Amino acid sequence: MIEKRTIKELIARVGRGKVFADREYLLAYSYDATGLEFLPDAVVFAEREEDVAAVIAVCRRHGVPLVPRGAGVGYSGGALAVNGGIVLVFTRMNRILRLERENLLAVVEPGVITSDLQEAAAKAGLFYPPDPASLKTSTIGGNLAENAGGPRCLKYGVTGNYVLALEAFLMSGEKVRFGSETIKNVAGYDLRSLLVGSEGTLAVITRATLRLLPLPPRRRLFRVDFATLEAGARFVQRVIQGNVQPSVLEFMDRSSLQAVCDYQGRTLDPRLGAAVLVEIDGGAAEVAERETRLEEEVAAARPLGRERAETPAEQEELWEVRRAVSPAIARLKPKKINEDIVVPCGRIPEMVGFIESLAREFSLCIVLFGHFGDGNIHTNLMVDPNDAGEMKRAEIVLDRIFRRVIEIGGTLSGEHGIGLSKRPFMGYQFSPAELELFRRLKKVFDPDNLLNPGKIF
Amino acid sequence: MIEKRTIKELIARVGRGKVFADREYLLAYSYDATGLEFLPDAVVFAEREEDVAAVIAVCRRHGVPLVPRGAGVGYSGGALAVNGGIVLVFTRMNRILRLERENLLAVVEPGVITSDLQEAAAKAGLFYPPDPASLKTSTIGGNLAENAGGPRCLKYGVTGNYVLALEAFLMSGEKVRFGSETIKNVAGYDLRSLLVGSEGTLAVITRATLRLLPLPPRRRLFRVDFATLEAGARFVQRVIQGNVQPSVLEFMDRSSLQAVCDYQGRTLDPRLGAAVLVEIDGGAAEVAERETRLEEEVAAARPLGRERAETPAEQEELWEVRRAVSPAIARLKPKKINEDIVVPCGRIPEMVGFIESLAREFSLCIVLFGHFGDGNIHTNLMVDPNDAGEMKRAEIVLDRIFRRVIEIGGTLSGEHGIGLSKRPFMGYQFSPAELELFRRLKKVFDPDNLLNPGKIF
Repeated sequence: MIEKRTIKELIARVGRGKVFADREYLLAYSYDATGLEFLPDAVVFAEREEDVAAVIAVCRRHGVPLVPRGAGVGYSGGALAVNGGIVLVFTRMNRILRLERENLLAVVEPGVITSDLQEAAAKAGLFYPPDPASLKTSTIGGNLAENAGGPRCLKYGVTGNYVLALEAFLMSGEKVRFGSETIKNVAGYDLRSLLVGSEGTLAVITRATLRLLPLPPRRRLFRVDFATLEAGARFVQRVIQGNVQPSVLEFMDRSSLQAVCDYQGRTLDPRLGAAVLVEIDGGAAEVAERETRLEEEVAAARPLGRERAETPAEQEELWEVRRAVSPAIARLKPKKINEDIVVPCGRIPEMVGFIESLAREFSLCIVLFGHFGDGNIHTNLMVDPNDAGEMKRAEIVLDRIFRRVIEIGGTLSGEHGIGLSKRPFMGYQFSPAELELFRRLKKVFDPDNLLNPGKIF
Repeated sequence: MIEKRTIKELIARVGRGKVFADREYLLAYSYDATGLEFLPDAVVFAEREEDVAAVIAVCRRHGVPLVPRGAGVGYSGGALAVNGGIVLVFTRMNRILRLERENLLAVVEPGVITSDLQEAAAKAGLFYPPDPASLKTSTIGGNLAENAGGPRCLKYGVTGNYVLALEAFLMSGEKVRFGSETIKNVAGYDLRSLLVGSEGTLAVITRATLRLLPLPPRRRLFRVDFATLEAGARFVQRVIQGNVQPSVLEFMDRSSLQAVCDYQGRTLDPRLGAAVLVEIDGGAAEVAERETRLEEEVAAARPLGRERAETPAEQEELWEVRRAVSPAIARLKPKKINEDIVVPCGRIPEMVGFIESLAREFSLCIVLFGHFGDGNIHTNLMVDPNDAGEMKRAEIVLDRIFRRVIEIGGTLSGEHGIGLSKRPFMGYQFSPAELELFRRLKKVFDPDNLLNPGKIF
């Protein structure tokens, strides 16, 4: 608990309309997409970088934890005040400060909503590729903290690949800037990359310079249906290794498709085992050429069927199914244990088969979908917290999945981050020496462990 | 000076054929492409990771500096033993351990020569894009240390974009591994990116897992000649911002072209002010489509002329001119002050004009060439160290160039690294707080400042 005078000091420094300690505010900022809840002591809405500096000064003086927060839609608990303290919300710092076609970049505040940036860029004929499923609500600041990915990251890379420069405050109160307005930059240690994906534990980002691309003139979306999970996974693998170079290669298993059909009140084709979405983008001839190569792969894979979406409206219809998976499966069981493991792209069919056999062996409902194109398999264990036996079985299965992922050269998380939820498994991926190095780096940036404590390690 | 017994201890631990303290060895490993010379106390050729561990143990015990070295072709002094000590040469650790088409990756030792990896990849239908001009001699370890770029990095990104995982030894003797065999990975702090470009000052890399791409089926190379430097620079800028998306966009000014002609015994067209190389790659239809777009840009730019190279032999002929620039201009004057500044892509014509006017104002020979497509302008001040006046003028001009680069959002170095040569200018790009953060991070990895001391900051 922080003292009343600390709240008063905050109000004095940043202004009354930005500081709240009422219970309804504390509750509203106590949870994120994990479903976990931790009540903060106060919520502050930053409106400018001076507010951030002031909150840091107050936290440092009184030894109060500080938790930066964007839209609070993260899946790993990164925005939760596990030790109480102040939640610093960035949704009011949401200006696109510059958007320059000649330099192919945008300068934004951390509270800009991802899709707002994409739309502003598109109006200028430009393209900001990172597209987490939450893009209509998530903020750039949250995307930076978790190094968010998304379907198009297969071809275009993750958030970090678009960060040219970052401005941030250290817990010492000093403002730092890393990076430049150029694509290449090897001056000094790459602290820009260190801050990206550091889950708000090293510094508080207040401004980002992001790289934009020319907008691809054309896009086509295809849906290819398969009778079995394995056939779909093999198709994905062949498309990656060939010369199709899709911009999207998304996968949905039968449970995902069934859940979406139930959600949308439709009937599912009983033969259907999996569906793959493939997007191709580029110039007209380029798209036509890649489509020919894709059709060869489709023919060789002998699918149940395939759809081709040419207009934006047709494409949106196919996308709707994919975007509905997450909310639709949430209705299958009271709780979704939501993992985003990644395996090397040649190991996808093997990993999918392994998870399937575990689901059978332990009588668990496991829903698989996601960005199979880059090996990122969203693995959802659907459970009932009141069923102790099922919870125990889920725990065993999760443990086996993580162990296997690491054995075959994969990683615990592709885009959600570690936060609270995957923290217990860090020892599978990192040695004590590596974890100790993380802790020592954290100490350089935040010697008093005030910035988003209790996360990652 | 290290003591005789330290040399004996090294020999005892790694074997006689790997340790040398004879003067001819020390001389041979005292310099790099900067022309600076610093004599080490001993040279050790690592053949396996146990050798690296043993050398680190000896250095730590006796407080001896350790300088990792690849081919020694760096432009910033990264491989120089400025405080003496042991130069640890990696050229014998040159095995490609795995090259997997199904997982699109290679696992290599640091001594593998860049072009050897490219050729091995191409044989498997794969592509390792980073292509520093020194690729036929430079090692992957050196490329990692400096985060090397090259012409194709315009489309494909720099060395760091292809690093999936690194194994390295800390100066504590502990072995660490960061990254995975997957493209996406957000588990823990991104120490893989921190090590890349850290110029051998944080850890000694002993193994790298590198991402490979499917080999683009087709390539075309074009050379477009212009009457003036500015016309060439404007053409470059329009091509970047349009939808050509070239894989290469290289620039040569009149002095570069003149030097190459002299070198090759040919006569230069007196009207020629600059030449631009443009490469397009991809599928057949894609290349044809992009070529059409390029031809529109070429027509609009009203060049002096243009050449089109279709066969690999024709392309190699055009490349030869570009690759000859560096050795050819070295003959213009006794000393080449070789910088690799980067400016935002919209500021290229402005920066080129600024440098040109400085050259006139200070009567200096400045040769400009390089990867203009990503704003990376190789700026070569050609001087005679015996001409004190010229050296003083070069110093003033260099200072003005660096100040302007930082003012307009650029960076001191795009691919060569800071090392010794750009260290005096770090204060232009970084604040005291930022430099202090670098020093504190260095201390976490290397508390006794034994690993490649005296570099960067």
